[in-house]
Amino acid sequence: MVERRKPIKVNEAINRVMEYAVPGNVHHVPLDKSYGQFLGQGLVADHPVPPFDRSPYDGFAVRSLDTEEAASTNPVTFEVIGEIGAGSVFDGNVGSFQAVRIMTGAQIPDDCDAVIMFESVKEFEEDGKPFIQIKRRLKTGDNISFTGEDTEQGEVLAKKGTPINPGITALLATFGYKQVPVARKPKVGIIATGSELLEVDEPVQPGKIRNSNAYMVQAQVERAGAEPVYFGQFSDEFETCLQQVKEAMDEVDILLTTGGVSVGDYDYLPAIYESLSADVLFNKVGMRPGSVTTVAAKDGKLLFGLSGNPSACYVGFELFTRPVIRTMLYSPLPFQKEETAVLGADFPKPNPFDRFVRGRLTYEDGRLVATPSGLDKSNVVSSLAEANVLIVLPGGTRGYERGMEVSVLLLEDQEGSSNALFHQHEQESRTHG
Amino acid sequence: MVERRKPIKVNEAINRVMEYAVPGNVHHVPLDKSYGQFLGQGLVADHPVPPFDRSPYDGFAVRSLDTEEAASTNPVTFEVIGEIGAGSVFDGNVGSFQAVRIMTGAQIPDDCDAVIMFESVKEFEEDGKPFIQIKRRLKTGDNISFTGEDTEQGEVLAKKGTPINPGITALLATFGYKQVPVARKPKVGIIATGSELLEVDEPVQPGKIRNSNAYMVQAQVERAGAEPVYFGQFSDEFETCLQQVKEAMDEVDILLTTGGVSVGDYDYLPAIYESLSADVLFNKVGMRPGSVTTVAAKDGKLLFGLSGNPSACYVGFELFTRPVIRTMLYSPLPFQKEETAVLGADFPKPNPFDRFVRGRLTYEDGRLVATPSGLDKSNVVSSLAEANVLIVLPGGTRGYERGMEVSVLLLEDQEGSSNALFHQHEQESRTHG
Repeated sequence: MVERRKPIKVNEAINRVMEYAVPGNVHHVPLDKSYGQFLGQGLVADHPVPPFDRSPYDGFAVRSLDTEEAASTNPVTFEVIGEIGAGSVFDGNVGSFQAVRIMTGAQIPDDCDAVIMFESVKEFEEDGKPFIQIKRRLKTGDNISFTGEDTEQGEVLAKKGTPINPGITALLATFGYKQVPVARKPKVGIIATGSELLEVDEPVQPGKIRNSNAYMVQAQVERAGAEPVYFGQFSDEFETCLQQVKEAMDEVDILLTTGGVSVGDYDYLPAIYESLSADVLFNKVGMRPGSVTTVAAKDGKLLFGLSGNPSACYVGFELFTRPVIRTMLYSPLPFQKEETAVLGADFPKPNPFDRFVRGRLTYEDGRLVATPSGLDKSNVVSSLAEANVLIVLPGGTRGYERGMEVSVLLLEDQEGSSNALFHQHEQESRTHG
Repeated sequence: MVERRKPIKVNEAINRVMEYAVPGNVHHVPLDKSYGQFLGQGLVADHPVPPFDRSPYDGFAVRSLDTEEAASTNPVTFEVIGEIGAGSVFDGNVGSFQAVRIMTGAQIPDDCDAVIMFESVKEFEEDGKPFIQIKRRLKTGDNISFTGEDTEQGEVLAKKGTPINPGITALLATFGYKQVPVARKPKVGIIATGSELLEVDEPVQPGKIRNSNAYMVQAQVERAGAEPVYFGQFSDEFETCLQQVKEAMDEVDILLTTGGVSVGDYDYLPAIYESLSADVLFNKVGMRPGSVTTVAAKDGKLLFGLSGNPSACYVGFELFTRPVIRTMLYSPLPFQKEETAVLGADFPKPNPFDRFVRGRLTYEDGRLVATPSGLDKSNVVSSLAEANVLIVLPGGTRGYERGMEVSVLLLEDQEGSSNALFHQHEQESRTHG
């Protein structure tokens, strides 16, 4: 009755899933709808920045050679022959000891090679004409922002797959991207299973709990950058539910189920995979929580059978589903960023399995410290709320002590990394068959 | 002609702005639309978790006293008298040496006080009846998740103003929040000024640049958690533009303008504040970039006059506007999280003003390292793209060296802090009048 499953290592499981991870499609969205999405093409400068030599300040443009003798004891007088507002161009000539009033961002007149700020000159009038006095020597190029000194034309300023932050938005605007090519958000279907599940608006009943996983996973899908499509709860009747899975799969790029993957009698996901002739990539992973996470592929489409246990469901999504989504979004860094942190609590009990403990990362005097959030029980919903990392504790024969260095996976980081690095710690881990 | 302005210190400027920062309103949104928003009320547990004593595993529920003699050399036999699927309740009695098959999450029968996992027993049949053999002693409570061990009824699990992450979503679902009270997103109006500005879809022209600030700030507004409303570019004609500001102010909670706040002749924001009889809180701050940032208040509503310079605009928003938005979203932590990092580059030149340098935070062996992104010129758009921190360099008579400890403000962090802490570094800073 109890099916014996052979657990595989976490990294092996990730590798098997990633073989099915392929880039998605590009479409265009208006610039002001693009924040938070992922660039579908590299961002290219269509012109140099600055596009012309310009003034970084409000001031006066002059020829620097005319200031050669200027000093605090020897003010040199310039006639102000015109002015240039930002956006306009001075079309006259500027001669010896002549100056042009210039506003921030305006183009430097051809004859000039330096700018002096308003605050540094004395202005006066004589015979109704404006003049300034300069009391220090300027060098050629002083207070000029030169063409292309920031960015050259044709330069790729952000790669395909970069998440669009406010700085990228500024670049997109600067280089004329009224419409932005972004990765189309993958549609990720979600089906909840479990006869113990109540809907969120139902009153609590003996023996039953409200369905939290489906909503939690929807939020995780959004955080990963995809679009959740919730199909509701499974039927308790096998044929109906098989039909539901088939219909859902036609509508989405990835299908997630929560619950129904244990070896219990009521868990019929395994039978559904079989009826679909789906290829089961694995159905047991040497990790805690989430050991029953099952992933299957059907016609190149992935079905993630996440555990019905909230923490196991959470971890299963972050380790296995998120990198697939990020790959579809063109990210060259589909995995969670992994950093080294000091462990903030003891884990005295050795565990043969690799553990992913929900934790809270804090900074203490510039060092990263990771502390488990709440009790480390896989059914503790509340500990998920404050978790911003998963603390990686490779399985082995020894426990872990406060103060030891451990790896943490950053849950709120948007940048990611190119590798599921934590295999480096697996030398000392063991998984039990 | 040149108005002399008296700069105030950054923290004094923030304090003046924060006097006008008031909490916003609450409204309800469906649970599946609430991710990323801010809780408008504390999240309260409407029942204990677990709501009943339940099994964390698939297994058999028994009376522990019956296992007293069990050992690997002395298997004890139990009759399996029924089974409980998750969500159903066992309504019979369980007597001596009887067991009930129980699924993960199901309620423990009243007579039982321990669970043993499937994998730990031997199952067999005799005379058509199911039996199990147990080879080890169980203690009362073994493998039982007890009522309320995670969460007690009435407990506040997340405070008002907490951003909704996937873990919070799980809690909201668990406790019946089909509709979630969230802080209404403040409407933040944006008006761009500057006769040098081209629209994003216009070709580049001599002397002109495309309007990037308005779009950048829209993304910053979204990142801060508010709703941007872009009103387009100002008229060049004073009366029209005054009218535009008045109309915009009626529609939004906060109004931002970009550009037009310098002391240049074309910068008529100061005249607009005067015509509105708005109270100018400050119009010069002892900081770089962003020294011309101007904030005014009219009938309790804030008008942020951000610089037309991209970096100054960016910094002005993050330092002054963001904490106001976060306060409206009820966050008790409206300021950017500030951490200590090791400086990754030299800043040899002393500067009398507090500087906020766009930087990139990386982790090296568990330590934070902050390196300036791109050249530190205030007009360098591209350096904004990869910035994830502002490096705080208090003004003073000395420069900064690689390896020194500095404060950094985390730009992508959603958590925040309760204080604009960087005043602690201001002892050694000086601002020039």
